[in-house]
Amino acid sequence: MAQAQTSKDEPDSAAGLVLPHIAAMAGYVPGEQPADGAIVKLNTNENPYPPSPAVRAAIEAACENLELYPDPSAREVRACAAELYGVDADGVLVGNGSDELLSILVRSIVAPGAAVAYPSPTYSLYDTLVEIRGARAQRVAWGPDHALPVELEAAPARLIFICNPNAPSGTIVSTDRIEAFARKREDAVVVVDEAYVDFADQNALSLVGRLPNVVVLRTLSKSYSLAGLRVGLALTSPGLAAQLHKVRDSYNVSRIAQAGALAALRDQPTMRAHVEQVRRTRARLRDELETLGFEVAPSHTNFVLARRPEENLAGLATALRERRVLVRYFTALPDALRVTVGTDAAIDAFLDALRDIGFSS
Amino acid sequence: MAQAQTSKDEPDSAAGLVLPHIAAMAGYVPGEQPADGAIVKLNTNENPYPPSPAVRAAIEAACENLELYPDPSAREVRACAAELYGVDADGVLVGNGSDELLSILVRSIVAPGAAVAYPSPTYSLYDTLVEIRGARAQRVAWGPDHALPVELEAAPARLIFICNPNAPSGTIVSTDRIEAFARKREDAVVVVDEAYVDFADQNALSLVGRLPNVVVLRTLSKSYSLAGLRVGLALTSPGLAAQLHKVRDSYNVSRIAQAGALAALRDQPTMRAHVEQVRRTRARLRDELETLGFEVAPSHTNFVLARRPEENLAGLATALRERRVLVRYFTALPDALRVTVGTDAAIDAFLDALRDIGFSS
Repeated sequence: MAQAQTSKDEPDSAAGLVLPHIAAMAGYVPGEQPADGAIVKLNTNENPYPPSPAVRAAIEAACENLELYPDPSAREVRACAAELYGVDADGVLVGNGSDELLSILVRSIVAPGAAVAYPSPTYSLYDTLVEIRGARAQRVAWGPDHALPVELEAAPARLIFICNPNAPSGTIVSTDRIEAFARKREDAVVVVDEAYVDFADQNALSLVGRLPNVVVLRTLSKSYSLAGLRVGLALTSPGLAAQLHKVRDSYNVSRIAQAGALAALRDQPTMRAHVEQVRRTRARLRDELETLGFEVAPSHTNFVLARRPEENLAGLATALRERRVLVRYFTALPDALRVTVGTDAAIDAFLDALRDIGFSS
Repeated sequence: MAQAQTSKDEPDSAAGLVLPHIAAMAGYVPGEQPADGAIVKLNTNENPYPPSPAVRAAIEAACENLELYPDPSAREVRACAAELYGVDADGVLVGNGSDELLSILVRSIVAPGAAVAYPSPTYSLYDTLVEIRGARAQRVAWGPDHALPVELEAAPARLIFICNPNAPSGTIVSTDRIEAFARKREDAVVVVDEAYVDFADQNALSLVGRLPNVVVLRTLSKSYSLAGLRVGLALTSPGLAAQLHKVRDSYNVSRIAQAGALAALRDQPTMRAHVEQVRRTRARLRDELETLGFEVAPSHTNFVLARRPEENLAGLATALRERRVLVRYFTALPDALRVTVGTDAAIDAFLDALRDIGFSS
């Protein structure tokens, strides 16, 4: 009721209370998270399989002491990640999702007005984080066949994001190429965002610590089936990690998230089995989409980008939605749909919907 | 091993990769979180009683869908908080602890180089957040009897923090005084940080929405016994909330945290019973400390500040630690110790340790 009285002038007055660049921005729009469980959800790259059963047991045990603050330095998770990835525990940061780690990197390294560079198109959150910071996004178009663009080597930015494998293209840049790039850019922090890397055949772990300006980001949201728990990891040199820790909220990872992450990281076989199943389904999905007339680049992730060059697929996304199948459409990539690799049954439902709409081999 | 080779020059080179003001800062030092369960822990103002039993059940249920992202807008928690506190759900933000909400406020409202004002001494995290932002802290000494200082009314700052009840003094400013202040400062966002307010006899909820520049912060860490879960709430006008949402990570509150918070907020009787027990123990603790020669202002929180004017109590904190009792000593307040109101047994152990050290009535 009180709102009804003030709603007419409130947006303006509230905008005047925050910084002008915040008032001017639209805000990030995450993919839809429907409450309706009957929908086939292939829009936000979740793993269709459950996490390790050890996660639930660990979370239940962590419920014993919820009145106490968590370990502010997440020592057990960091030690476990260090052993698993062959890096120094002092170079590991744990975040409330890798999104928080991306935000910490921007706030630590980039002054308002300065630039952040990245190949484009890529994970759209980078644009939002740059906008929040009042910084400048220097987007450099991917080279032929999604090669790392040469122009990035000269970009006047102290922070460079490389989403690898990239979203939404699903493509990957070789570790050798990343290493050569990072050596040329010793003046900058080079972030290799490996959110999807467990679905690929390579990764950049060999660079961690050896090149002090490289940060490898991992998340438990995709391969470990824990998007709902919010845990990400940054792997870098101890010196850079010590700086980033200053900007992190001291209690940023809950007791529950620390316990669940530890259990998930310790159960590699469950994660590997689910990744292998996703890769098998991914191969089939690609074949079927090509048969139905889509162009699909080989994917190194748990999604594929299905293109109909020169067509606008917004209507197709709507038609799929009417058939209770959610996929992701980006206005910046109008001739493509990004489709998460779900269970075989979910992919069959998606393909059936396409045929129902009129696609045929 | 790799670190041993680079450790000599790495701190310098890493410092050169981040912003100069980040490299120069020391970082926030949270209170010690000992792994040793045998210690009497009265140093970080945790509630000694467990959360509502409904929290565990809700968390277990939320384990069913951890592979899916959480609701990015935390609708259920916001609706529940809105009903409980009598505010508009569109004016509610849910944070990964109220620490995250404080950080969002700073990043939304304060440009680097600009000022944030607050009475001092107060919650030391404010200093850290200002430092991370490269902003200026304008600390205004509390008035006589911890009155809100008149000088704050003229402080050239767009963001003003009032920790109320205040830490570490335990004192409170009346809602009428806060309202008059916020009306004079319509140019600024006035944040009333009510982390401890459930242990007091008043709060500033009546200002939410009515004064569009007021933000009331709540946490589930203290009265709801959920420091380990990381959930905070910001209650403000819908217009200002819409701006702050832009700066929030879209998936900042996990499925587990949303489910646990909802269960805790819905069980008011458990929270109230534990708060009443803490208040009874607090009264006894104050009496006993005064008998032992300490000055203790009436506390409106779940801790007391015990003073020996003109003495330095660092040695006393150490002597207590040797007797397995942790309390909080601040170098900025050398003649005081902050003591959390634990269980009656924990407080007896603390008082016994004081007597063992030589204090007597």
